[in-house]
Amino acid sequence: MEALDAWLRYVDVLAIAAFAASGALVAARKRLDPVGFILIGCATGFGGGTVRDLLIGRTPVFWLSEPLLMGVGVGASVAVFFLAPLVQNQHRALLWADAAGMAIYAVLGAEIALRMGAEPWAAVLMGVVTASFGGVLRDVICNEIPLILRQEIYATAAAAGAAVFALLLWQGLAREPAFLAGVAVAFAIRAAGILLGWSLPVYGARPGLGREHPDR
Amino acid sequence: MEALDAWLRYVDVLAIAAFAASGALVAARKRLDPVGFILIGCATGFGGGTVRDLLIGRTPVFWLSEPLLMGVGVGASVAVFFLAPLVQNQHRALLWADAAGMAIYAVLGAEIALRMGAEPWAAVLMGVVTASFGGVLRDVICNEIPLILRQEIYATAAAAGAAVFALLLWQGLAREPAFLAGVAVAFAIRAAGILLGWSLPVYGARPGLGREHPDR
Amino acid sequence: MEALDAWLRYVDVLAIAAFAASGALVAARKRLDPVGFILIGCATGFGGGTVRDLLIGRTPVFWLSEPLLMGVGVGASVAVFFLAPLVQNQHRALLWADAAGMAIYAVLGAEIALRMGAEPWAAVLMGVVTASFGGVLRDVICNEIPLILRQEIYATAAAAGAAVFALLLWQGLAREPAFLAGVAVAFAIRAAGILLGWSLPVYGARPGLGREHPDR
Repeated sequence: MEALDAWLRYVDVLAIAAFAASGALVAARKRLDPVGFILIGCATGFGGGTVRDLLIGRTPVFWLSEPLLMGVGVGASVAVFFLAPLVQNQHRALLWADAAGMAIYAVLGAEIALRMGAEPWAAVLMGVVTASFGGVLRDVICNEIPLILRQEIYATAAAAGAAVFALLLWQGLAREPAFLAGVAVAFAIRAAGILLGWSLPVYGARPGLGREHPDR
Repeated sequence: MEALDAWLRYVDVLAIAAFAASGALVAARKRLDPVGFILIGCATGFGGGTVRDLLIGRTPVFWLSEPLLMGVGVGASVAVFFLAPLVQNQHRALLWADAAGMAIYAVLGAEIALRMGAEPWAAVLMGVVTASFGGVLRDVICNEIPLILRQEIYATAAAAGAAVFALLLWQGLAREPAFLAGVAVAFAIRAAGILLGWSLPVYGARPGLGREHPDR
Repeated sequence: MEALDAWLRYVDVLAIAAFAASGALVAARKRLDPVGFILIGCATGFGGGTVRDLLIGRTPVFWLSEPLLMGVGVGASVAVFFLAPLVQNQHRALLWADAAGMAIYAVLGAEIALRMGAEPWAAVLMGVVTASFGGVLRDVICNEIPLILRQEIYATAAAAGAAVFALLLWQGLAREPAFLAGVAVAFAIRAAGILLGWSLPVYGARPGLGREHPDR
C-alpha cells in the first residue's frame, strides 16, 4: 500500500497525539514515572494503528519507520507529564482526548480497510477495532475499567462515524468531506455520551442477573 | 495457503458462533448496549482465528474478506442480546458455548499449524493458543477472571484434543474422523470439568503462599 | 532476515527460560495445574519475541519452527511446578527471573530493530516493547498488577539498556561487548529498583488526584 496522502498523515498525527495524551493522563492517575508516561502514551497512541497494520499485513508496522510520528507520541506523553498539573479536571481531559482519537481512528481505520478492498461492513468493523484498540490496551494494562464498557455510548459512536464515511463515499462524495463528516459524526455522538449521558438501550436489568455467578 | 475445505469452514462457522455467543453472554452480564454485544462477541469469536492468522503470517486476516463469517459473529451477538432473557442460567450457557468454541478451535488450530509444516507439539501448543485466545480476550477486556485460570480443567482439554487429533493423523487416520475425535475428546474433558469439577492436581497449597506478596 | 547468530540464540534461550520461569511462578501463586503453568510460562517466555516478530513482519513467528526453544519454555515451566516448593521466597524469585528476561529482551529487541534499519530511538522503543510485553501479558492474563506499573524503576531500565547498546554500537564498539554492556546496564538498574527501591520522580501527588473519577 502506498503512503497515506499528506493530509491524512496530519490527521493521523492528531489522533496519535490525542490518544497518547489520554494514555499519559491515565499514567498520571497511576502516578507513573516519565518513562511510564511514554510507554502507556505510546501504547495508546500507536495501539490502534498497530493492530490495523497487523490485521491487514502491512509490516513492518508504520511507526518503526516513522520517527516523526513516534516523536509526536513521545512528545505528547512528556508534555502531559509536565502540563497535567495545570489541568483542573484530568478525568474530563482524558475523556475528550480519547474521544478525539477515537473519532479520527474510526474513520481512518474504515478508510484503510476500504482501500484494501474490504466490504463496507468489514470496513466499519475495522474502524471500530482501530478506534477501540488503543484505549482498550491503555485501560487493560493500567487495570482501569475500559471506557468501552461504560454505559455512555462509545463503540456506537465509532461505528456510526465509520458507517457515515463509508455511506458518503458510496454516494459519490469526495474523500476529504466524507472523512470530515464521519469524524464529526463520531465525535458528536461520543460528546453527547459524555455531556448528556446518551446511551443505547442496554441489556435489561432483571432479578438475579447482576450477581457474578448466578448459578452458584 | 489455500482456503479451508468446505466442511472445515462449516466447523469454523460453528466455533465462531459459539464463541461470539459466549462473548455476548459476558456482555449481557456487563449490561452493554447492542454495539457492545457485537464488539465483545466478535472479539471473542474472531480473536482465536485472528491470532492464528497473525502468528502464521496469513494476512490480511481471514475475516476482512469474509463478510459471511462476520455476519455469523454479528448475528450470534445480536441474537444473544434478544434471546438471553429467555435463558434461565446464563453463566452455564456461557460455559457451554465457550466449551464448544474451545474444542473446535483447539483442533482447528492444530490442523492449520500442521498444514504449515509445524512439528506435532508445536501444533498442539498452537491449538491451545487458538482455543484460548478469544476467551482470554473476552475476559480480559471485560474484567472477568479468565476461565482458563479457574480450577476446572480447561487448557488441558484443549491440549488433549489437539494431541489426540495429531496422534490419530500420525497413525494414518483420515482427516475428518481424526478431527471429530479430537473435538470430542476436548469437549468431553472440558464437560467433565464443568459438570464433575474435574481438575488436574494443582500446585500445592502451603502456608504463606496464598498471600499476594509473601516477601513484604 | 537471516537467523540469529549462534551466540544470540543462546542468549535468547536464557531470556525465554527466565521469562517462562517468571510466568510459572505467577501460575504457582494462582495455584494452576501443570498445563496452566506451561500456558502462562510460554505466554510470558514467547510473548515478547512474538510481538517483536509480528511488528517487523517476520512470520510465521519464530517458535512455530523452533521445537527446541519451545522445549525450553515448556521445560522451565514444568521445572517450576516441581521445584517452586523448594524456593523460600517465590515473589522475589519472580522479580529476579523477570529482571533477567527483561534485560536480555530489551537489548535483543533493539538489536533486531536496528538490523531492520530502524532509527536508534525506534530501536530503543522496540527494545522496551519487547522487554515489557511478555510480562504485561503474564500479569494481565493472571489479573496481577503489571510489574511495569509498580513504582520501582522498570521500563526505564529496559530503555537505558537498549539505549546504551545502541550508543555503543554507534560509537563503533563490536556487537557482542555492546550487547553485554546493554544487558548489564538494564539488569543493574532494575536490580537497584528491586533491592534499593530506586525510582524516577513520579507524577506528583496532589489533593484530589487520587480519586478514581475526580469529576464525579
